[in-house]
Amino acid sequence: MLQGHQSWKFENKPVILSTATIVGPEEGKGPLVNDFDIIHEDNWIGQDSWEQAEQKFMEETVKLAIKKANLTTDGIDFYLGGDLMNQIISNSFTARTLAVPYLGVFGACSTSMVSLSLSSLLVNSGAANHIACGACSHNSSVEKQFRYPTEYGSQKPPTAQYTVTGAGASIIAKEGKGPRVTGATIGKVVDMGITDPFNMGVAMAPAAVDTIEAHLRDFQISPDYYDLIVTGDLAKVGHQIATDLFHKHKIPIDQTEFKDCGLMIYELDNYLIIAGGSGCGCSAVVTYGHLMKKLRNGELNRILVVATGALHSPISYQQGESIPCIAHAVSIESE
Amino acid sequence: MLQGHQSWKFENKPVILSTATIVGPEEGKGPLVNDFDIIHEDNWIGQDSWEQAEQKFMEETVKLAIKKANLTTDGIDFYLGGDLMNQIISNSFTARTLAVPYLGVFGACSTSMVSLSLSSLLVNSGAANHIACGACSHNSSVEKQFRYPTEYGSQKPPTAQYTVTGAGASIIAKEGKGPRVTGATIGKVVDMGITDPFNMGVAMAPAAVDTIEAHLRDFQISPDYYDLIVTGDLAKVGHQIATDLFHKHKIPIDQTEFKDCGLMIYELDNYLIIAGGSGCGCSAVVTYGHLMKKLRNGELNRILVVATGALHSPISYQQGESIPCIAHAVSIESE
Repeated sequence: MLQGHQSWKFENKPVILSTATIVGPEEGKGPLVNDFDIIHEDNWIGQDSWEQAEQKFMEETVKLAIKKANLTTDGIDFYLGGDLMNQIISNSFTARTLAVPYLGVFGACSTSMVSLSLSSLLVNSGAANHIACGACSHNSSVEKQFRYPTEYGSQKPPTAQYTVTGAGASIIAKEGKGPRVTGATIGKVVDMGITDPFNMGVAMAPAAVDTIEAHLRDFQISPDYYDLIVTGDLAKVGHQIATDLFHKHKIPIDQTEFKDCGLMIYELDNYLIIAGGSGCGCSAVVTYGHLMKKLRNGELNRILVVATGALHSPISYQQGESIPCIAHAVSIESE
Repeated sequence: MLQGHQSWKFENKPVILSTATIVGPEEGKGPLVNDFDIIHEDNWIGQDSWEQAEQKFMEETVKLAIKKANLTTDGIDFYLGGDLMNQIISNSFTARTLAVPYLGVFGACSTSMVSLSLSSLLVNSGAANHIACGACSHNSSVEKQFRYPTEYGSQKPPTAQYTVTGAGASIIAKEGKGPRVTGATIGKVVDMGITDPFNMGVAMAPAAVDTIEAHLRDFQISPDYYDLIVTGDLAKVGHQIATDLFHKHKIPIDQTEFKDCGLMIYELDNYLIIAGGSGCGCSAVVTYGHLMKKLRNGELNRILVVATGALHSPISYQQGESIPCIAHAVSIESE
């Protein structure tokens, strides 16, 4: 299964039986409005706190994915998930509700592809027949935890990104109909010394480039193998830097479409959004909503999703540490 | 590889090539003093903050495990680790130093066996040749984050536990000499409605019992298959509850030695320790230090390590949530 230095080739091609996405109001105003299962009109969704709301988003999304796969929780062997909350409580409490064996994972905003790559590995190796996997974020709970209380209404620089409120989940199976996971590349931590938590895209861009280059090297392919290579949440500034780095390294990225989930999910003329979307939910809902739809209807055949994450914490930032970043890539192909 | 409902049988029996443990001064005063590689005389180990010290413990321990396996970081395919710090920074920063592909995992104090079970699965399935895996905790950084600033010197109830300062790491390989990982059981979240973060052992005991019973059921064995079944950090009160639950469920736990890492690492007549040890580092250093020594010298042949974790956060506790718990079991057998 090990392919090259840091990749896995999934010979049994695990199937993505179903996916589900539930988002908040801002995401419902964006261009992908028709690609999500449920769009909530407010961020509280009947809960008493933002943290509880985030958990509810995750819980409802996994339940919906299980239902769409015509399964019940009894048919799910394991749940793999993670999020940005301290001690990934949104996913641990979701696992409590599901009552299936649970493995918590963390890769900051790259978590969606940590859970998908490991889930695919488990199914590919016969360690599971059906796995539910997911990732989520909530704008208000994340802003409160990582930056300023939102009530302050403090101004943000033009590099700041808007954390997606939403959850994405998928059911990975040994057999069945649906797009298939064919490979994954696990990222190394890349740290270019950036210390500004309002400039995540710039910090994460070199990690995305490093993982994509490792993927192409490990599988001995060029970018045109894919119809689309999509990063997680580099947003405006970071995505441009990644493109420039590919040109500098003479990687023919122009052979394929090269996009970013953080640039796809919102209209960018919105004063809230600034440079684009971010958060674990960003790559999760764009992949499991928008991209899966295109893989199912034949508009796309082969894609590489490269979720990007900034592995700092408020404490590490306050203690003067720079922001270590990572990116994990998963290749998905239509049947 | 899937065995029963929630277990994995590792047919290729991945080898634990080497292990390393580094602990703080309190752990050096305990009965396992001769089983650790390095015992530091203070908790700061030359760093400016407790968080940086915790990271240093982890980093040095993984490097030592790699060295003891006669490898360099170039020979390590992946690093899997996690800890109790928000956004598992101790392990993410360790991964930055190691510069090997990294997967972050989280299971609170059960993290040691999340990383060991997944690492063994990766090696067993051919997804890696050599993996480094680890877990750590630091008494001062954990107390500061989860309870009161230690400077307060606040009194604690008799159920409180003392977080271990220490890190444990191991190198898992396809081939070589050393004890072998033969199976794992992934736990479900069990929540009995306990809301007191000074009473973790009680909250976690039912999760430990649930996972051990699932393990015996999945592998169709009785407790006497093992020379020792050891829980992670149930401590005095929790371990007694677990024993009582086994008796109630008519599981013949008395057939084997049934111990707890949290009761093994310290002398319990110490006013600091109270009910026993806890933290991700507890099961990590007792397993990789003390138990591996006994497996290597033939005093033990088959053990089941059942690391236990409380999956709450300060926020979930403050919002009135109960404490969801989990336990993951890994069986290790001498060659």
